[in-house]
Amino acid sequence: MSMEKINVGVIGLGCRGISLLEEVILLRKDVCVKAVCDVYEDRIQQAQKLVETVCGEVPFGTADYRNVINCPEVEVIVITTGWESHVEIAVCGMKAGKAVAMEVGGAYTVDDCWDLVNTWEETKTPFMFLENCCFGRRELMVLNMVQQGLLGDIVHCSGGYQHDLRDEISWGKENRHYRLRNYLNRNAENYPTHELGPIAKILKINQGNRLVSLTSTASRSAGLHEYIMTRKADDPKLVEAKFCQGDIVTTVITCAHGETITLTLDTTLPRYYSRGFTVRGTKGMYEEATDSVFLDRKEDRERDFRWRREACGNAAEYAKSWDHPIWKEFLEQGVVGTHGGMDWLEFEAFFECLRSKEPMPVDVYDAAAWMAVTALSEESIAKGSAPVAIPDFTRGKWMRV
Amino acid sequence: MSMEKINVGVIGLGCRGISLLEEVILLRKDVCVKAVCDVYEDRIQQAQKLVETVCGEVPFGTADYRNVINCPEVEVIVITTGWESHVEIAVCGMKAGKAVAMEVGGAYTVDDCWDLVNTWEETKTPFMFLENCCFGRRELMVLNMVQQGLLGDIVHCSGGYQHDLRDEISWGKENRHYRLRNYLNRNAENYPTHELGPIAKILKINQGNRLVSLTSTASRSAGLHEYIMTRKADDPKLVEAKFCQGDIVTTVITCAHGETITLTLDTTLPRYYSRGFTVRGTKGMYEEATDSVFLDRKEDRERDFRWRREACGNAAEYAKSWDHPIWKEFLEQGVVGTHGGMDWLEFEAFFECLRSKEPMPVDVYDAAAWMAVTALSEESIAKGSAPVAIPDFTRGKWMRV
Repeated sequence: MSMEKINVGVIGLGCRGISLLEEVILLRKDVCVKAVCDVYEDRIQQAQKLVETVCGEVPFGTADYRNVINCPEVEVIVITTGWESHVEIAVCGMKAGKAVAMEVGGAYTVDDCWDLVNTWEETKTPFMFLENCCFGRRELMVLNMVQQGLLGDIVHCSGGYQHDLRDEISWGKENRHYRLRNYLNRNAENYPTHELGPIAKILKINQGNRLVSLTSTASRSAGLHEYIMTRKADDPKLVEAKFCQGDIVTTVITCAHGETITLTLDTTLPRYYSRGFTVRGTKGMYEEATDSVFLDRKEDRERDFRWRREACGNAAEYAKSWDHPIWKEFLEQGVVGTHGGMDWLEFEAFFECLRSKEPMPVDVYDAAAWMAVTALSEESIAKGSAPVAIPDFTRGKWMRV
Repeated sequence: MSMEKINVGVIGLGCRGISLLEEVILLRKDVCVKAVCDVYEDRIQQAQKLVETVCGEVPFGTADYRNVINCPEVEVIVITTGWESHVEIAVCGMKAGKAVAMEVGGAYTVDDCWDLVNTWEETKTPFMFLENCCFGRRELMVLNMVQQGLLGDIVHCSGGYQHDLRDEISWGKENRHYRLRNYLNRNAENYPTHELGPIAKILKINQGNRLVSLTSTASRSAGLHEYIMTRKADDPKLVEAKFCQGDIVTTVITCAHGETITLTLDTTLPRYYSRGFTVRGTKGMYEEATDSVFLDRKEDRERDFRWRREACGNAAEYAKSWDHPIWKEFLEQGVVGTHGGMDWLEFEAFFECLRSKEPMPVDVYDAAAWMAVTALSEESIAKGSAPVAIPDFTRGKWMRV
C-alpha cells in the first residue's frame, strides 16, 4: 500500500454508511471513495452526490456488493450494511484481497464467526472490526488506568447497550431498518459489542485471556407493542405485530481467569442513553452511571453513603491525568467526526495499520468472539438460560501472548 | 394479645441485636424486653445493662435460645443471630406459639425454607421476616408510583447488595462474625433479600406472580485476600486463607409473568454503598445510581445523553408528590431508629399486625422464596451457572389473589 490515496468502496448506505461517509471518510485527505453500494437506488444517488461534492468525481454506484469487490481500483471495502450481510460481504472481500473494515452487529450463527476467522487465516487480508466504543474517551481512560495498575486486579466488568430505539425500530411507512425484522423474529443479546469490546480489551481477551461461557435471560416483550399502540403507527401492520425480542436481555459471561462480565441489552423501554460501562478491581472502580472513579483509600471510603452526592462526575478530574495518550493528542488537535470523535479515531487506527502493515487494534478474533455472543445468547435463551460454551476462535493462540 | 405491653425476648446480641434493642425496641413504649440470649456471656451482660437502664429491670439472660422460648412470659421472639440458626430458632419459636420476628439472611437448603412454611401453616403463629429495605423511603416511593401506574407495565428490575464489607469480614483477633466462616467456605448470592424484597413487592411475588427460576455466576475471589495482604491482619491465619466466595455474584431470576430480576452481590471489592435499586416499566424507570425518575415524555427523552448531568437526583423532587403515605406520616412525626428509619417502620408494622391480627406485610412465603435464592444460587454456581427452578412455596396459592 503506497502513501498515495487509498481507494475505498462503501457498501451499505443507510444512516450509518452515509454519516461515516460524510463526517469521517470524506474528511480524510488520504482516502478516495471510488465505489458506493446499496440495495436502494435513492441511497446510491445520495452517496454519489455527497462524494461528487467533496471529490469532484462521481463514484461507481451499484446494488450488488460483488461489483464493488470486483472493482480493480477499490483497495478497501467499508461494510455498513444491515447485520445479516456483514459476514458474507467481509468473507467475499477478504477472498478477493480487499482490506475490510466491517461495522458491528451480532452473529446469526457461530459458523459465521469461524468463516471470518478461517478466511482471514487463509488470506491474511487486513481486517478490522469497527467497534468504535473501543475508542471512547472514558473507555480508553479506564483502559489506561487499568494498564497502569490504578484499579488493581480486575475481576468483574459490566456494560450495556442501553438506548431507547423504539422510534427507530417502528418508524416509517416503508421501514428499511434491519432492526425491525430482527426484533419481530428473534430473541437475543442482539448488539453486544459496544460494551463488550472495551471490556474485552481491559480483560485482555484473546491476549492472555478468553471468553469461556455465557448464560442469557430475556424478559418478556412489552415496550414496543405499547409504544406502537399509544402512537399512530405509520405502518398499520405493526399494531398487530408480536415482537419476539425481550425488552431486557441479561447476559453473564465467564472468562478463563475467573473474571465475569455482565451485559444488558435495553433498547425498547423508556430510558436515557448509557453504555453502563463499569470496571471493578481490587484497588478501585470506574462506573459510568455516576461517571466516577472510586479508589481504595481513606478519603473515598469515608464518602461511602455520600458518594453519589459528593463524587458523581469526578471522572472529569481524573481525565486530566489519566486520559489515554491518543485522546490527549486528539483533544489537542481538535476532536472531529461522529459519535464524539470515536469514529474518527477508529478509522485513523484502521488506515494507519493498513499503511504500516501492523496488526489491527480490533482484529478478526475479537470480531468472532464478540459477535458470537449474539448467536450463543439466542441459544441460551432458547434453552431456558442454560450455560453455553464460547468457542476459542484463536485455537489456543490466546495463551501464547 | 392485649393492649398491655408485649413481652419480647431477643435472641442474638451481636451488632444487629444490640442496635435494634437500643435504637428501636427499647424506644417503644408498648414493648417490654423480658429475656436476652447469646452464646457469648459478655454480650448477654451488655444487653442486660441496656435493658436495665431503660426499663429498670434486669431481663433473664441465657446462652440457650430454648430457655427464651420456654420462658412463659415471653410472647414474641426477635431473632438476630448468625445466619445459620435463624430457621431452627424460628421453627422452634412458632411450635411453642411464640410470635416470631426473624432477621434476614439466605437459606442454606431449600428444605429449611419448606420447614418455615410448613411450621407456619401448621401453627399459624405470627411470623414476620425482618426485611427492613421493604420499608426504605425510595423503595416505598417507587412501589407507590408503580401501584398508581406511573411507570407502566413493569418488565425488569435490578438491585444489589453492594457494600464493601472487607473490614467487617476480616476484622479482629477473635472474629465472631458469621460472615467470615461463610466467605471462607461458600460461594453463593449469600445476601439477596435487601434488594429482592422491595423488588418482589413491586412485582407482586406470591400475590399474583412468583419467582420461577434463576442462574447464578460468581467471579473469582480476589478482594479479601488482597485486602488482608495489604494490611496487618489481626488474625495471622487469615493471611493463608483461601476464600471460596467470589467477589461479584450475578443472579438472574425469571418470574411467572415474564419479568426478569438481576441481583448483584458485591461485598469484597472497594466501592461505595448502594442497593442499585432499579425498576423498568413501559412508561418510565427509577434508578438508584442516579437517584432519578425517567418518564416517557418529551422533556425527559430530549435529555437522553444529558440525563446524568441534568437529572441526577431528581427523585427528591418526585418524593414531594410520590412519597408513600407511611413515609409522609413518618416524616411529619419525625424519623427515628436505625438505618434511616426503615427499622422503626418495620417493627411498627410487626407490632401493629400482631395486635390487630392482620397478615404480616413480609410473611413466611416471602421469607421462603427470597431466602431460597441463596441455596439455589449456590446450586447454580456449583453446576456452572445452570438454571435451577425456584419452588412454589405457596403451593399455588399465589394465583388466588
